[in-house]
Amino acid sequence: MSTDGPVKIGLLGRGTVGGGLVELLGDRAEAIRSATGREVEVSGVLTTSQGDFEQILAGADVIVELMGGTTTAREHVMAALKAGKPVITANKQLLAQHGAELFDAAEEAGVQLRFEAAVAGVVPIIRVVQESFGAVEFTKVFGIVNGTTNFILSEMASSGASYEDVLAQAQELGYAEADPTDDVNGADAAAKMAILARLAFHTPVDFDDVPFEGIESVQPDDLAYAKELGLSLKLLGVAERLEGGITVSVYPCFLYPGHPLSPINGPFNAVMVQAPEITEVTMSGPGAGGTETAAAVLGDLISVISGDAPIHAAERELPVLSDVESSFYLHLEVADEPGVLAQVAKVLSDAGLSVKSVVQKGMGDDARLVMVVHRCPEKLFTDTVAEIGRLDSLRSGPRFIRVIEEEFV
Amino acid sequence: MSTDGPVKIGLLGRGTVGGGLVELLGDRAEAIRSATGREVEVSGVLTTSQGDFEQILAGADVIVELMGGTTTAREHVMAALKAGKPVITANKQLLAQHGAELFDAAEEAGVQLRFEAAVAGVVPIIRVVQESFGAVEFTKVFGIVNGTTNFILSEMASSGASYEDVLAQAQELGYAEADPTDDVNGADAAAKMAILARLAFHTPVDFDDVPFEGIESVQPDDLAYAKELGLSLKLLGVAERLEGGITVSVYPCFLYPGHPLSPINGPFNAVMVQAPEITEVTMSGPGAGGTETAAAVLGDLISVISGDAPIHAAERELPVLSDVESSFYLHLEVADEPGVLAQVAKVLSDAGLSVKSVVQKGMGDDARLVMVVHRCPEKLFTDTVAEIGRLDSLRSGPRFIRVIEEEFV
Repeated sequence: MSTDGPVKIGLLGRGTVGGGLVELLGDRAEAIRSATGREVEVSGVLTTSQGDFEQILAGADVIVELMGGTTTAREHVMAALKAGKPVITANKQLLAQHGAELFDAAEEAGVQLRFEAAVAGVVPIIRVVQESFGAVEFTKVFGIVNGTTNFILSEMASSGASYEDVLAQAQELGYAEADPTDDVNGADAAAKMAILARLAFHTPVDFDDVPFEGIESVQPDDLAYAKELGLSLKLLGVAERLEGGITVSVYPCFLYPGHPLSPINGPFNAVMVQAPEITEVTMSGPGAGGTETAAAVLGDLISVISGDAPIHAAERELPVLSDVESSFYLHLEVADEPGVLAQVAKVLSDAGLSVKSVVQKGMGDDARLVMVVHRCPEKLFTDTVAEIGRLDSLRSGPRFIRVIEEEFV
Repeated sequence: MSTDGPVKIGLLGRGTVGGGLVELLGDRAEAIRSATGREVEVSGVLTTSQGDFEQILAGADVIVELMGGTTTAREHVMAALKAGKPVITANKQLLAQHGAELFDAAEEAGVQLRFEAAVAGVVPIIRVVQESFGAVEFTKVFGIVNGTTNFILSEMASSGASYEDVLAQAQELGYAEADPTDDVNGADAAAKMAILARLAFHTPVDFDDVPFEGIESVQPDDLAYAKELGLSLKLLGVAERLEGGITVSVYPCFLYPGHPLSPINGPFNAVMVQAPEITEVTMSGPGAGGTETAAAVLGDLISVISGDAPIHAAERELPVLSDVESSFYLHLEVADEPGVLAQVAKVLSDAGLSVKSVVQKGMGDDARLVMVVHRCPEKLFTDTVAEIGRLDSLRSGPRFIRVIEEEFV
């Protein structure tokens, strides 16, 4: 980086976040100077219609990648790192799919690659995991890392409206994109969890390592029954260190009241990190928004200019495990006749599964049987549910959703 | 700092936190090496019975001050900074009372002074305010920054027990010290808020600038009545940027359900930061504990060794304002006779104060009148309450507690 004159920023992409960043750089010029001792100027902007990347790279001290995508963005970021220029990016898919080569390139060139804005919006979880808790041995990192789905689930729970209606409302309010696929199917959250897991456990984790489920099939009556059990539904990303490896996944999950994540409603994100020496720390804030994401980029920019230490990526090789344990909510539509509960209970107990709570309700000839099953291996649970699904008294396929079982005071 | 061989740490004080740090340095040696590229060793320890400070200082690359107090600790930290050695401290009173000269000395010597462990335990609020949000113009920084009082208030609310009984229980559990004065009277929280306000607003704030109230006079029946209004009680530290200056203070305060701080129970801390570009970010975690505090010190140590940018302290001079606005809970014991509510209502309305909600209950000849008064200047409120206190129908002095009025969904 040049050591006199303004720090020159090459900006790749100038959409909502890029525009917000340019505005912040103007509004906060005085604060940036005070924090870094330097002036900052945008020396070049690349959009689909303007700018030449090679020229922008040559004239820049720092590259800020806000163009999105994983093809051109990948080439440009690699080129910048190889040219010895620090890079700041908000591109979660780029990091989740090509993190290994990007982190290697940054380390080889001895330059910083920062990406606070890629995970959990303005919540500064990347810095906290990497710097505040840089030598902490995390046991678990989990949370709500997609604001769109959290908005939809909170609205469905409070209004009783259907998934489709609330999604349409989220689109009107700007909380969901015109094509919401990657948000609602869990892929966006999976990319963020791949990044977080890599940092927390110092081991390579790619997007492909993270199984994900979305919220498209959540029914309003699941939320209504769950309310009777005192539960609230969140789309959770969970990365956990287990005996012999790690597990990383994304799925809808019920929480008991008092859980630190249960009050997180609307388009917010929240992440909890756990380790013996820190117990647990929870951080929450707005999931995205142009200004908020730009503020996260600006924080990274200040660190790059101030010359904070470069960032260390993966140096372990932990296996990614799949069959883990969970507690489950199970929803059954059954014939309202004597002995049905006993049949279901027998299948569960034969499998060694134990029930924490049950709600049963008659509905004409049918009944709903809703229960929470204590923590057990996921495969055992799904096998047992398949067996329950074969009972004659079942009126439709069983539905189930994971539950975080811990109750908090 | 020496550039080869292990980084030498001079440790001042070896109580719970110091012992925890020494243990962590051993347990996490590999992780520290991986994060910093260096080995770390404790080259000298100063306690009341062992060690010579001059000798320890001469042999150390970094000084870690965990001895407490504001006399010897101040001399040693100043000496270390003047000798060009970075300092890490967990000493909130030292920073709150002598921050100005310490920050100046660090800046003059161009060395780091880090103190994550001094505020909010393991919650990394200092780094987030200084680094993640280094160029953010904060409007408000507030939260629960004392775990002892939060434990006491949560227990009083859930058990209905008296302040004295719960304090005794907290002492048994190790959540309160043998002499809990500085915790329960708000002085500890005030020191932390002075430090936070200085960093957030880039202006000198000392302990003496922060008026504080404690929780010693909170009555179980305040908590019981408040529950009927849906409120929970916290000891809050509040630092706010207002027209023409800032205000920093510590006081017990009611929160409506849904407020991000209302679910924070037990010996936990939580801090919220607000600014237009980040909306709001909330961070929570254990308030203290030897291992947790040591983990915060270790995070600072890694940053110092990695050579992160030095920290900037105050460069503005904002006046500290005193007469600010608040909403209030007001508790009156009155004669149970016609017209009393009307009398009280008249005094309030003559003063221009408006009531949000009222609960009235008969108790034999007396009645309790509990209400929430909408946001108004504090001086206007206390003057008006004094006038209410002179009404013949009052059976005892009015009691009042601030309320955060915003309701959350």
